[in-house]
Amino acid sequence: MMDKAKQDELKKAAAKKAAELVHDEMILGVGTGSTVKFFIDELGKLKEEAGLHLKAVVTTSSRSQKQLEGLGFKVSPLADVDQVDLTVDGADRVDSQLNGIKGGGAALTLEKNVAVNSKKNVWIVDESKVVDHLSGFALPVEVLPISCEQTKRRFEAEGLNPVFRLNPDGSRLKTHYGNYILDLDLARIPVPSGLADYLDHTTGVVEHGLFLNICDQVIIARDNGEIEVKKR
Amino acid sequence: MMDKAKQDELKKAAAKKAAELVHDEMILGVGTGSTVKFFIDELGKLKEEAGLHLKAVVTTSSRSQKQLEGLGFKVSPLADVDQVDLTVDGADRVDSQLNGIKGGGAALTLEKNVAVNSKKNVWIVDESKVVDHLSGFALPVEVLPISCEQTKRRFEAEGLNPVFRLNPDGSRLKTHYGNYILDLDLARIPVPSGLADYLDHTTGVVEHGLFLNICDQVIIARDNGEIEVKKR
Repeated sequence: MMDKAKQDELKKAAAKKAAELVHDEMILGVGTGSTVKFFIDELGKLKEEAGLHLKAVVTTSSRSQKQLEGLGFKVSPLADVDQVDLTVDGADRVDSQLNGIKGGGAALTLEKNVAVNSKKNVWIVDESKVVDHLSGFALPVEVLPISCEQTKRRFEAEGLNPVFRLNPDGSRLKTHYGNYILDLDLARIPVPSGLADYLDHTTGVVEHGLFLNICDQVIIARDNGEIEVKKR
Repeated sequence: MMDKAKQDELKKAAAKKAAELVHDEMILGVGTGSTVKFFIDELGKLKEEAGLHLKAVVTTSSRSQKQLEGLGFKVSPLADVDQVDLTVDGADRVDSQLNGIKGGGAALTLEKNVAVNSKKNVWIVDESKVVDHLSGFALPVEVLPISCEQTKRRFEAEGLNPVFRLNPDGSRLKTHYGNYILDLDLARIPVPSGLADYLDHTTGVVEHGLFLNICDQVIIARDNGEIEVKKR
């Protein structure tokens, strides 16, 4: 196990690598997570030291928004901008084909809406998130409360092991859009596109955490100190 | 053109036909619309005259809920009941294969969630709603505000002629779930399943008004006074 200082060094190096992809007058999408936090720090440095000027910035989390605004960036809602040029985000899992699972922070719907409306998506992750095949992380599915019990029973009938995500007080977690999260406890997800197709077609599902054919480039902070870049 | 009294007679006859499908101890789904209003009247009569007892009633509109409660029926949220046995609803268009367009009243999301969780779906319509192929009614699509402009541009690029549905004051209509409606102004919808598939896969779409392979039976009030029943 690495100590936190060493881990942070690694994350900073990965964030720096991602920041090399940022250019003046871009419309930039910014995700969330501990590595993205360092990426935003880098944006601040570029602004300070190189006069970086972005055309617009959108983000998927209030924490990142606060950090960005603190550095003098104006944050816009996604619907107010044209297509995003580049989005930098984290991921909960990423496989050898650069497909991933996101939604550990329950923001999958906004994250996917920003991602599919970005010309280029780059994920920064540490080695623990990298897998050969998607596995090791429950797949979050955002569902409408009106039919949540029926949707849960459907998922149970399909062997998807759905569990409502809860708040610390035991109540059901509500997303920013007033929906619930069903976490699908799957040991492994063979043929993720098949599951995504099923979830897309299920009435009552608002969005799911399978991000397929979305990520163009992943920047991996390896435990051995190397920064690996993989492209689709 | 028929006068209103004659039209109401016809709708009543269709509603009565639908009421024949209602049995004691059913979990019943009730939609909305002028013909469904007469159907609810029939339910009231059955309760009064034949002691009809329903296990539970769910509905897709506050107007129908008020009418049902006025007749002494207790209305439950969908998520609180098991699978619905029978849902009786209207439709904006229904084709020769019993596929339809719904959502003229902007309640398509709740309507579809009730419908797909019903063992049997019966639509009561007048002749004006019946078409060979789906056409003659804009297709409503409920979209997330966060990406609504992007979604609209996507639809435009696909030739789907999207128009935001507006309130009388010119502001955008918000659905019960805080989303917008894009009405797709399509002269005709060839291969509805292909369009439904595209919409299901489009991030930012919450639900759409194509109800395919859902309706089991349609009760048509014909202008000539006949009540026609078509089954899938």
